[in-house]
Amino acid sequence: MSSVLLVKSPDEVGLINRITGVLLRGDLNVVANAEYVDRETNWFFMRTEFDGEMGEERIAGELARVLPARSEVRLVRPIRKRLVIFTGKEPFCLGDLLLRWWNGELPVEIPGVISNHRDQEALVQKFGIPFHFVPVRESAGGTESSRKEHEQEILKILQPRAPDLLVLAKYMRVLTPEFAGRYSNRIVNIHHSFLPAFVGANPYRQAYQRGVKLIGATAHFVNEGLDEGPIIAQSVLPVTHADSSAAMALQGREIEKVVLARALQLMLEDRVFVHQGRTVIFE
Amino acid sequence: MSSVLLVKSPDEVGLINRITGVLLRGDLNVVANAEYVDRETNWFFMRTEFDGEMGEERIAGELARVLPARSEVRLVRPIRKRLVIFTGKEPFCLGDLLLRWWNGELPVEIPGVISNHRDQEALVQKFGIPFHFVPVRESAGGTESSRKEHEQEILKILQPRAPDLLVLAKYMRVLTPEFAGRYSNRIVNIHHSFLPAFVGANPYRQAYQRGVKLIGATAHFVNEGLDEGPIIAQSVLPVTHADSSAAMALQGREIEKVVLARALQLMLEDRVFVHQGRTVIFE
Amino acid sequence: MSSVLLVKSPDEVGLINRITGVLLRGDLNVVANAEYVDRETNWFFMRTEFDGEMGEERIAGELARVLPARSEVRLVRPIRKRLVIFTGKEPFCLGDLLLRWWNGELPVEIPGVISNHRDQEALVQKFGIPFHFVPVRESAGGTESSRKEHEQEILKILQPRAPDLLVLAKYMRVLTPEFAGRYSNRIVNIHHSFLPAFVGANPYRQAYQRGVKLIGATAHFVNEGLDEGPIIAQSVLPVTHADSSAAMALQGREIEKVVLARALQLMLEDRVFVHQGRTVIFE
Amino acid sequence: MSSVLLVKSPDEVGLINRITGVLLRGDLNVVANAEYVDRETNWFFMRTEFDGEMGEERIAGELARVLPARSEVRLVRPIRKRLVIFTGKEPFCLGDLLLRWWNGELPVEIPGVISNHRDQEALVQKFGIPFHFVPVRESAGGTESSRKEHEQEILKILQPRAPDLLVLAKYMRVLTPEFAGRYSNRIVNIHHSFLPAFVGANPYRQAYQRGVKLIGATAHFVNEGLDEGPIIAQSVLPVTHADSSAAMALQGREIEKVVLARALQLMLEDRVFVHQGRTVIFE
Repeated sequence: MSSVLLVKSPDEVGLINRITGVLLRGDLNVVANAEYVDRETNWFFMRTEFDGEMGEERIAGELARVLPARSEVRLVRPIRKRLVIFTGKEPFCLGDLLLRWWNGELPVEIPGVISNHRDQEALVQKFGIPFHFVPVRESAGGTESSRKEHEQEILKILQPRAPDLLVLAKYMRVLTPEFAGRYSNRIVNIHHSFLPAFVGANPYRQAYQRGVKLIGATAHFVNEGLDEGPIIAQSVLPVTHADSSAAMALQGREIEKVVLARALQLMLEDRVFVHQGRTVIFE
Repeated sequence: MSSVLLVKSPDEVGLINRITGVLLRGDLNVVANAEYVDRETNWFFMRTEFDGEMGEERIAGELARVLPARSEVRLVRPIRKRLVIFTGKEPFCLGDLLLRWWNGELPVEIPGVISNHRDQEALVQKFGIPFHFVPVRESAGGTESSRKEHEQEILKILQPRAPDLLVLAKYMRVLTPEFAGRYSNRIVNIHHSFLPAFVGANPYRQAYQRGVKLIGATAHFVNEGLDEGPIIAQSVLPVTHADSSAAMALQGREIEKVVLARALQLMLEDRVFVHQGRTVIFE
Repeated sequence: MSSVLLVKSPDEVGLINRITGVLLRGDLNVVANAEYVDRETNWFFMRTEFDGEMGEERIAGELARVLPARSEVRLVRPIRKRLVIFTGKEPFCLGDLLLRWWNGELPVEIPGVISNHRDQEALVQKFGIPFHFVPVRESAGGTESSRKEHEQEILKILQPRAPDLLVLAKYMRVLTPEFAGRYSNRIVNIHHSFLPAFVGANPYRQAYQRGVKLIGATAHFVNEGLDEGPIIAQSVLPVTHADSSAAMALQGREIEKVVLARALQLMLEDRVFVHQGRTVIFE
Repeated sequence: MSSVLLVKSPDEVGLINRITGVLLRGDLNVVANAEYVDRETNWFFMRTEFDGEMGEERIAGELARVLPARSEVRLVRPIRKRLVIFTGKEPFCLGDLLLRWWNGELPVEIPGVISNHRDQEALVQKFGIPFHFVPVRESAGGTESSRKEHEQEILKILQPRAPDLLVLAKYMRVLTPEFAGRYSNRIVNIHHSFLPAFVGANPYRQAYQRGVKLIGATAHFVNEGLDEGPIIAQSVLPVTHADSSAAMALQGREIEKVVLARALQLMLEDRVFVHQGRTVIFE
């Protein structure tokens, strides 16, 4: 595995030449490279995989000298990321992730799985991963207060585990903006519709009632606002009038699993930029 | 080509046996048959292709004797349907339909093409089909009145041409409920999004701004309400962050053409029932 | 769950009416029905789901009276089928099936998993299913003899377990015609190419070398001849020049899992007929 | 429209930096850039779109100084390419190309359409493009001789028209290696199967007989060997047991048109390299 350099910068003539010049002078060997310029906002994005040793600070320092102000540079060393999975009652996305991890397809540490239900405890324990049951308790302060206390408990579990990414694998609760803000652009959710169609509850029921001929799944960041963060991956599959909403839900699992796994892979390989509510993805 | 019998009926035990019994006693040879029961509403749908001669009235009479009250029976003889195409400034859907007609893929009569723009006149005339330019004129009575006068002019053209189907091939105007009501379940529109996402104007711009990873096209009936009639066919194709809304519009043509042609084929072969805002389609 | 009646017969006028007549007189309630006539060979296929009790022998007897000679009738009661899984070193298809079984998506008994490698033993045991390691031993009689002795050992495991279906989930060995013949149209294999392209070994390597832009997966019956049984399900996904054959193999897992699961579902719901080397599938 | 620079070279450290350095010193503004290194053969590929004026010879000269021996450089000015279409009896691919040209989607000159049949003459003439009927005549020298005389006649038509690209739009004849060699990597054919499955005649019949569940289309270069040149684009669509080979042929048109148009677009935008029998495509 190689290191990854991510550069986001206001566009200027000669950026590629300047950045590759820094790498060249540092004796770093570029193994893959991709650039993109967003013409609407005139921002430049570059992702470079390279081999070789040069202190991160030195690279950052040299890049700072050649890049415009407001540029953002991120340098990611080839170390396994830490992933905490949130789940609910439905096992298929969670099970799929656990199996990929077991197979070596998902090269991460999983310091724990968190759920407000006990349904998946047995499955998680089969794979030797700690399962944290965090029930939602009624609070004298009402729903809002209950939500915050629940998230406080979760934060206590998360902090020592220092996750790089949180994955909501059929975790059916809404997070507060405060919680989401702490892990900005690091919480990935799978929604069971082709967003922005059918936001909110029961998307398969909505899809059935509207009589669509395709159902979808969307992996997206959870920042603020339900189902409104930047989209990372989407897929659809055909349905007919003969599919009840329950049948759609069963078939939809096929794409929910794949779309979530795809989004995670893109995140783990540091292929995703977020820019003005949209993702820029170097596949 | 065979005749088609379409039956829609409240479900009861033995319907298939009763209907096939009528056909059998009439010496009609079934060449294809399909049934569906909608479990939510308990309605039965059946589509039968058959060869052989028996008076339509006699079949209808015999079926009436064996079917429940509220049943609807439609018998379609193998005669070419009459299709009037409405178009705007964009040529790709119109051209695709004309070419399919020229190739024999679209076995219809096209008594005319109607447009509020002259842009496609030359193309239509290449194929020897009458082009009717019906401009939208300002009216002393305002927009609403202008819309009605425009539709009155169109109706004058339509009536002698007795169309079985109207196709809106990038006709970018909204029809009044009165007009749509006259051709209920007989007006097919192509919308350039995966409905119900991105109703209304500029769906590709909306898609770009939301950052979706797939764009769609939807063929649907125009009954009442913009972009809200029953859906006949849908498709999607992948896009990336690098596709501007103009690039999406260009790529989207590929599925708009195919989805519209597919919906028309289903209509021409009498494969589509409408039931409570959704379509039941025997493919 | 309902019972399923499968009828395969030389075509004649009135078959649907005759068959539904038998069910009607037996007070059986049809919940779903589908027919197909193969025009090339003039054979008729029908699949009916029904509720209600009537002795199997009585139904078979009454159908025999109304059906042509050479008809084949199969009546399947709603009892869980018994599935034995064969696997090799690669865990992804096996794991996917185990997880679907655990989730209740695969409503079967799994009396055992058989493998010529120990790699998946730990995974299988997590799910509490017996794992049978049957190594391939050298034989004084050479390869052919070794193969037969290996299959004899497997047959000893299979017989008391009375499987309805055998699934080859990345079991990388060729079966003898004798073995395949014992379970005719009951052994389902997943092949990692879009058959008939790239039969045999290393299909992803072959795909890479030919420079295809799509890779495929095929679920098919194993009757005689490697990769030549009737096809049940296929899928493809896009690749580019930048995908090495190893990258293709990794991506191909996504469709291998889904295609195998889909084929199994079709088999478990008794939706598949085999007719002259091809499948007739009522989806 | 911008100019395009295509570089193919043995890989070395620092190539991107060297090439962008040449462009920078020439005051050329890079608007899009993409690179790829083939790890199996260790070759480097780069495609750059740029604006600005600098003599082609000067750019070539400066690049020659910084690039390894055996490098190949191609510089393409933004001038409309010249496309000659070959066709047979089937109109759908030809018609689709003519319509795209008429719509402005295919920004080319079409100096002529060549066919060994008169079937499409009327369609071509509708669009004001010269139609050249070149019948295949019997030759005293036999089939081989007849083929060569036919190609001689075609070459007489081609030479003054100086085509950049030849497109075989359902032209059902095999070209001699001599003819193909003259236009190496410049003849694009559409084959009606997912190559390498079903090479040769009647692929839909072959597909029907094998019972595949997907049919395909492949756009590829015609170099030597029937259906064996490097693949540019492929697509598939689902079929069922109920589709006769004639039905497959009709449905297959949908992807044949789209895949051919897509391959042409890639060629016209200079996005395709050929390397050791495979294409490297910068989409």
